[in-house]
Amino acid sequence: MHTELHTDLKKFDRVVYIVSDGTGITAEKFSTSLLAQFDITYHIIRIPFIDNMEKANNLIDKINCINHHNKPILFTTLVNQQVSNIVHKANAFIVDLFQAFVQPLEQELCLKSSHAINRSHQIGNIEVYEKRIEAINFSLGHDDGQSHANLAQADIILVGVSRSGKTPTSLYLAMQHGLKAANYPLIPEDFARLELPSILLKYTNKLFGLTIEPNRLSDIRHERKPNSIYASLQNCRYEVLEAEKLMRRHNIECLSTTHKSIEEIATTILQIIYI
Amino acid sequence: MHTELHTDLKKFDRVVYIVSDGTGITAEKFSTSLLAQFDITYHIIRIPFIDNMEKANNLIDKINCINHHNKPILFTTLVNQQVSNIVHKANAFIVDLFQAFVQPLEQELCLKSSHAINRSHQIGNIEVYEKRIEAINFSLGHDDGQSHANLAQADIILVGVSRSGKTPTSLYLAMQHGLKAANYPLIPEDFARLELPSILLKYTNKLFGLTIEPNRLSDIRHERKPNSIYASLQNCRYEVLEAEKLMRRHNIECLSTTHKSIEEIATTILQIIYI
Repeated sequence: MHTELHTDLKKFDRVVYIVSDGTGITAEKFSTSLLAQFDITYHIIRIPFIDNMEKANNLIDKINCINHHNKPILFTTLVNQQVSNIVHKANAFIVDLFQAFVQPLEQELCLKSSHAINRSHQIGNIEVYEKRIEAINFSLGHDDGQSHANLAQADIILVGVSRSGKTPTSLYLAMQHGLKAANYPLIPEDFARLELPSILLKYTNKLFGLTIEPNRLSDIRHERKPNSIYASLQNCRYEVLEAEKLMRRHNIECLSTTHKSIEEIATTILQIIYI
Repeated sequence: MHTELHTDLKKFDRVVYIVSDGTGITAEKFSTSLLAQFDITYHIIRIPFIDNMEKANNLIDKINCINHHNKPILFTTLVNQQVSNIVHKANAFIVDLFQAFVQPLEQELCLKSSHAINRSHQIGNIEVYEKRIEAINFSLGHDDGQSHANLAQADIILVGVSRSGKTPTSLYLAMQHGLKAANYPLIPEDFARLELPSILLKYTNKLFGLTIEPNRLSDIRHERKPNSIYASLQNCRYEVLEAEKLMRRHNIECLSTTHKSIEEIATTILQIIYI
């Protein structure tokens, strides 16, 4: 909670505190979505692990000492009532993200809420967590076609030309969804042979294609290898065209990554493969 | 939205729909935190990209056709009023995650909300997004000490014994926070020399240590190499002890990963390095 030392808070319309008993990651993302509806500038300070009264008191002392030029906004997801009561003493506009929903849910479910500390980013179920770590290691070991071993264990194998987004997407699928996501490049040799890399022919049911607009691909490749044939628009057009042909021939579902973030690509893939 | 075909929904107390105009990733995590307060079993069906009235109508037709044995719960973050109105016709207990906060925020900020589609997981600022992709590639290229090139560009270099959690943490820091996170193993040769790998001596200000309880480390290593000296408790005790000694000698901040998830490790690191 020392970010304010390095940042000129007066440059922003509002300072936004995210106070959580866990990591505050979800609360921060949620608050950011809400604030995106408003045309203001803001600086976020995420304050995690506020899980007892002492930490809460220290925090409020600090926040209330800062000379904010506009009232800060404080988002909180604290479930312990005593800790929450302390945080509500902040000189801030307080948005309690949980309180609004707990009571209606209690009524609908005919249950009392446990007020247990938010467990969403704790290890939780150790087996699920270990599966996730295993998936990350698998995806890392099967990045860019670097290993053929255990490809049969892959949940999904992404294919596409170099720099079409395969690597970050594989890692995201592993990290967030626990999927063993391998990826395999389609390269000029494959286009000359008019065929997929032979190792992949056994696994066509696991393949998912990523494609990209040649202009965008050329820009990305120029960043890496400026003025190379590899990055030239002509070559990018050729590679993308041939890769898409190969995918069509094998009925491989394919998605354009040009205007999509990793999260959007991953979400779209999951939507398609789970249908 | 066909998950229900593969899953016996009757096994769960409730079916939970997450309906979003974006990916629904944040809405799902937030809803899961809320539901964690209640002792019920549930099955989540995330329905992303509901960004027009036609999609909303189709969705509601589908949901309302399903024979739920208990009223489903439907969490939504739709900002378009017309789309939202349609989704509110679902035969479900509806929790509108945005509506509760938009009006109070409008009042506090003296602004109208834009009702623009949630942009939290879109590419948004292209420079920030490209920095994130670059960070992922950097972290991948600097995993497990595999490259010394450009180590000067690293934002952080994680050090620790093999299997202490360096790889998933580096990738998470890159993917979620856009940090160029390298990692470098501390190995028996370093302990014999009683010194850090020489390449790291230039960068001690960027080093952050991960450690782990020897028992847990031994379990993790046995999964990889059963009954090896590498995995033996005695060797794990030795390596952890020596690694911690080295870190202390160079005043390297150090964190135990034993009971922490990747998100908790990353959050704690950010807390420490930004102080």
